[in-house]
Amino acid sequence: MDIATIIGIVLGFGFILGAIITGAGLITFLHIPSMIIVFGGTFSSVLIHFSMGQFLSIFSVVKNTFLTKSHSPTLLVQQMVNFAAINRRDGALALEQEIRKVDNKFLAKGLQSLVDGQEEDDIRSLMELETMYMQQRHGDGKQILEFMGASAPAFGMIGTLIGLVAMLKNLSSPDSLGAGMAVALLTTFYGSLIANIVFIPLAGKLGQYSKKEAVFMEMTVEGICSIVRGDSPTVVREKMQVFVSSKKRGEVKVSI
Amino acid sequence: MDIATIIGIVLGFGFILGAIITGAGLITFLHIPSMIIVFGGTFSSVLIHFSMGQFLSIFSVVKNTFLTKSHSPTLLVQQMVNFAAINRRDGALALEQEIRKVDNKFLAKGLQSLVDGQEEDDIRSLMELETMYMQQRHGDGKQILEFMGASAPAFGMIGTLIGLVAMLKNLSSPDSLGAGMAVALLTTFYGSLIANIVFIPLAGKLGQYSKKEAVFMEMTVEGICSIVRGDSPTVVREKMQVFVSSKKRGEVKVSI
Amino acid sequence: MDIATIIGIVLGFGFILGAIITGAGLITFLHIPSMIIVFGGTFSSVLIHFSMGQFLSIFSVVKNTFLTKSHSPTLLVQQMVNFAAINRRDGALALEQEIRKVDNKFLAKGLQSLVDGQEEDDIRSLMELETMYMQQRHGDGKQILEFMGASAPAFGMIGTLIGLVAMLKNLSSPDSLGAGMAVALLTTFYGSLIANIVFIPLAGKLGQYSKKEAVFMEMTVEGICSIVRGDSPTVVREKMQVFVSSKKRGEVKVSI
Amino acid sequence: MDIATIIGIVLGFGFILGAIITGAGLITFLHIPSMIIVFGGTFSSVLIHFSMGQFLSIFSVVKNTFLTKSHSPTLLVQQMVNFAAINRRDGALALEQEIRKVDNKFLAKGLQSLVDGQEEDDIRSLMELETMYMQQRHGDGKQILEFMGASAPAFGMIGTLIGLVAMLKNLSSPDSLGAGMAVALLTTFYGSLIANIVFIPLAGKLGQYSKKEAVFMEMTVEGICSIVRGDSPTVVREKMQVFVSSKKRGEVKVSI
Amino acid sequence: MDIATIIGIVLGFGFILGAIITGAGLITFLHIPSMIIVFGGTFSSVLIHFSMGQFLSIFSVVKNTFLTKSHSPTLLVQQMVNFAAINRRDGALALEQEIRKVDNKFLAKGLQSLVDGQEEDDIRSLMELETMYMQQRHGDGKQILEFMGASAPAFGMIGTLIGLVAMLKNLSSPDSLGAGMAVALLTTFYGSLIANIVFIPLAGKLGQYSKKEAVFMEMTVEGICSIVRGDSPTVVREKMQVFVSSKKRGEVKVSI
Repeated sequence: MDIATIIGIVLGFGFILGAIITGAGLITFLHIPSMIIVFGGTFSSVLIHFSMGQFLSIFSVVKNTFLTKSHSPTLLVQQMVNFAAINRRDGALALEQEIRKVDNKFLAKGLQSLVDGQEEDDIRSLMELETMYMQQRHGDGKQILEFMGASAPAFGMIGTLIGLVAMLKNLSSPDSLGAGMAVALLTTFYGSLIANIVFIPLAGKLGQYSKKEAVFMEMTVEGICSIVRGDSPTVVREKMQVFVSSKKRGEVKVSI
Repeated sequence: MDIATIIGIVLGFGFILGAIITGAGLITFLHIPSMIIVFGGTFSSVLIHFSMGQFLSIFSVVKNTFLTKSHSPTLLVQQMVNFAAINRRDGALALEQEIRKVDNKFLAKGLQSLVDGQEEDDIRSLMELETMYMQQRHGDGKQILEFMGASAPAFGMIGTLIGLVAMLKNLSSPDSLGAGMAVALLTTFYGSLIANIVFIPLAGKLGQYSKKEAVFMEMTVEGICSIVRGDSPTVVREKMQVFVSSKKRGEVKVSI
Repeated sequence: MDIATIIGIVLGFGFILGAIITGAGLITFLHIPSMIIVFGGTFSSVLIHFSMGQFLSIFSVVKNTFLTKSHSPTLLVQQMVNFAAINRRDGALALEQEIRKVDNKFLAKGLQSLVDGQEEDDIRSLMELETMYMQQRHGDGKQILEFMGASAPAFGMIGTLIGLVAMLKNLSSPDSLGAGMAVALLTTFYGSLIANIVFIPLAGKLGQYSKKEAVFMEMTVEGICSIVRGDSPTVVREKMQVFVSSKKRGEVKVSI
Repeated sequence: MDIATIIGIVLGFGFILGAIITGAGLITFLHIPSMIIVFGGTFSSVLIHFSMGQFLSIFSVVKNTFLTKSHSPTLLVQQMVNFAAINRRDGALALEQEIRKVDNKFLAKGLQSLVDGQEEDDIRSLMELETMYMQQRHGDGKQILEFMGASAPAFGMIGTLIGLVAMLKNLSSPDSLGAGMAVALLTTFYGSLIANIVFIPLAGKLGQYSKKEAVFMEMTVEGICSIVRGDSPTVVREKMQVFVSSKKRGEVKVSI
Repeated sequence: MDIATIIGIVLGFGFILGAIITGAGLITFLHIPSMIIVFGGTFSSVLIHFSMGQFLSIFSVVKNTFLTKSHSPTLLVQQMVNFAAINRRDGALALEQEIRKVDNKFLAKGLQSLVDGQEEDDIRSLMELETMYMQQRHGDGKQILEFMGASAPAFGMIGTLIGLVAMLKNLSSPDSLGAGMAVALLTTFYGSLIANIVFIPLAGKLGQYSKKEAVFMEMTVEGICSIVRGDSPTVVREKMQVFVSSKKRGEVKVSI
């Protein structure tokens, strides 16, 4: 669970809501037709830009940004060192029962290939293909979120233009001028707010997450392949720790 | 037929029309001279930027975005596996009658070359050239749509400036101020709307479509060349499935 | 003569002029001092950005965009096939009288080198250098036009600021407020119009033109070098038609 | 200590404060709720975009931009030449007591590896990994500051929209119109000011600093590796001075 | 002396001054506090972004853009051809007295290395390093000018916000509204003017100048190295004229 994302969204909406409530009251800022213009317009343009499949995948991708717990590289090195020790002592088949204890699907899949006695090259190309598909899926998600971050303010401005034209046509009642203009500005407000608090930073987080995940998966590939070659636990640790900054090293114990 | 594009355009215009009708009535937002400035200006600048041929091709390219049904990679693999089986069993000439059953022109052309007994290298270079021309044609279309997406709001602003200058010159009648300003804003509204609901997302769709089509054509090339080399159906399937994500594999049956 | 550019410019100014004349009369939109700010400012900044030579070359480059007739690739292949036939039948010297009939300077130069008996490598490097200089010249022209497309709206805004400040200083006569503001907006109008109807799309056209010209020159180089090597007309045609899309092929007759 | 950064920030805020105090008094420009919208919104969006770790690291990275004294390349060459002389005269172990005198941690680490008798390749890969982590850390910091530079004006505009809507709803009291609008504009003012005086230029400085530091670390690597190979002080100087512009050379004495 | 830069700046300010004087009088547009906000703010942000050394170098770099006379490639080829003739006839030492007659420092330095009998590889790497430092210095200057071109309008807008807030707080005297707003707009005017007439086009000129200078220095390197190898004047001319467009060739006489 990525706590920073949740804190950020709660805080961000909190600050804005606080300013709204102390300023003019929440009711002034709630206007369903304005919301429909901004959100409806943004979602429509996403449907035109992307395929139905990409559009539907965005929800699961965003959900993952919140729910997926980020893996600990140190833990991964420790696990892999243990697997290397078991492999050397009891052979690859003894790793079969370890697979069930692993809650990282990618690692489990790699171990299964190892237990099945596949060749190093096959395991590597299979796992790297999987990494590539993960990055492509995340890249799609990032692209959709960035497009929404550009589209929402545009539809906000379109909504404001609609509101202004409607207001200017009815100038006969000067009392309603202020209220009409206030409503017209709401779409721009919605579009800017949702883009800057949700779409743009979430796209950024997805990029960070994808970069981290790719390093993690690359580490897993190096570890599994090292075990397949029959390397000792110490060698496995050395090969994987290249990816870890020096501060976080040295916590992994090699016990054969 | 790409259903998402059509749903998106219908929904997008629906939301905006709904907001307009409930807000100030459709009549207020219909102003033919304003439309002429925005659409005339945008089309003129496209004519200056691109050649007459590119300008005319844009309509067929956009039409394709709506009408072309996207091909199923799984079906392609299944077809190719069947062709490989026929090729092995009855020889390349037996494939001639299969060509008529194929409704994918690129695949049919590849099969014809195969039946004609051309060399693998010639087939590959011919088909890759075709792929390159497809990408270039789509790239041209995307560039034109993106240019229109930038040009339409610019001519919208130019129209608004014309309207504002005309209105400011006739300030003697303050009653007409609101109406004049409302009309002036309409060009900016038209330019932003058409750019954000049609030009910009359609350019994006064309890019997605081109990327998918290129992968599909590359798969076809690999399959045809594999059959030319006399590979078994199983090998053909393996070579083509590299392009398919693991979730969608395994549905192809190899029956010799 | 590129008919699309001329149609586009005539249509573009036509639409805008129509809107102006039906809206507020042409006189309202003619203001010499505003034109001087926008055009004077833009040309001054071009002089600062580029050298005197580049500044002066822009006029001939733009003129070429209008006047140069685009070459027909099919005609070029046909010409080259004929030259190859003559070369094979009567020797290179017999090509000397063909040079005079050719109205494409680059091709004539290549033929002259061929008749002069230069080596293939020398001809190729000389002609490729010429192609590079053409692209550099066009690239310079495109960069200048793009800079003008960014500069003109900026000086439009500067002019509007000058007009607004002048108007605000003389608020004593509220009657002149509208007229003053109308004049102030004219510079922004001029800057946006000239950028979006002339500078930005012309820069695009120059890019398209340069790309086409480069392919054409590359085809000429391949053809001349193929003749130098003594290839048969059929081989010359094959080598040049790689650059032509399959739809346009097959129109070239090889008659020895 | 980077004096230019401090002078710049002091001067920048000084000019703005001077303009504010002579213009309308400082009190007019202090509005805590507006500050909360801009700074709260910006920090929230940083939390959503980046991970908690990256968010916390930004403070130490910015602190370093102010406090870290930039190293003198000439001094480094002189030190390295001396170490080479000691290494040649008394052996690598004699360098151990020099380590304590060095206040550059990266150099000290390199010397320690040298004294420990590690291989040249190991020292080089270790030190280059360290350089890469430094650049990645700085790159993260730069990215965060650039994102804040884009986010702060956006939240400034969102705050202004909130203020405008609130003001327009209460048009009954026209006296408060000016005051309400003044407050509404303050968020845009805060967002633009902080972005242009702090976030954007600090991101630039971090980039400059990172580039300089990388060259310095590369020089250190070359020097240490040259000493490991047993090069003479003169050769060490030659190899390191490639990184120094010719004007600053020649100040290093080689005394064996 | 680059005459285009000077003509451009004189003309640019001339057009703007003309518009100002005929429009509202120069006095209206002179406001020292507004200038302090824009120029003070811009210079402060440059100090924060760049180091003190880079900040100070900008003045000499800009001065060079005005004062340095651009070298004639034809003259350089002629000089080099003469040097090659002297070298062949009287030996390298005879070139020593030619060095004093050369007013191009880079060429003089190259000749000195030649006279000193250095190896071709050493001369080449030394001169290419010098070229690289020149480009880096110009690149720094260009980056600073571009940053100022982005910073000045931003501080212009900040100044306008300060002016607007101050004006809105004092709405009691409606007479001063116009004057206050006029002053508020001046900072945006200053920022846009200085960016579009000085900073942005000067950055462009520096880029053009740097590109030209790099080609010129590369020609010098090729010429000197050709002489070192003992090439004949004709060969030296051939090697250097590759860099000169064909129109400007043929003016160089080879007289041995």
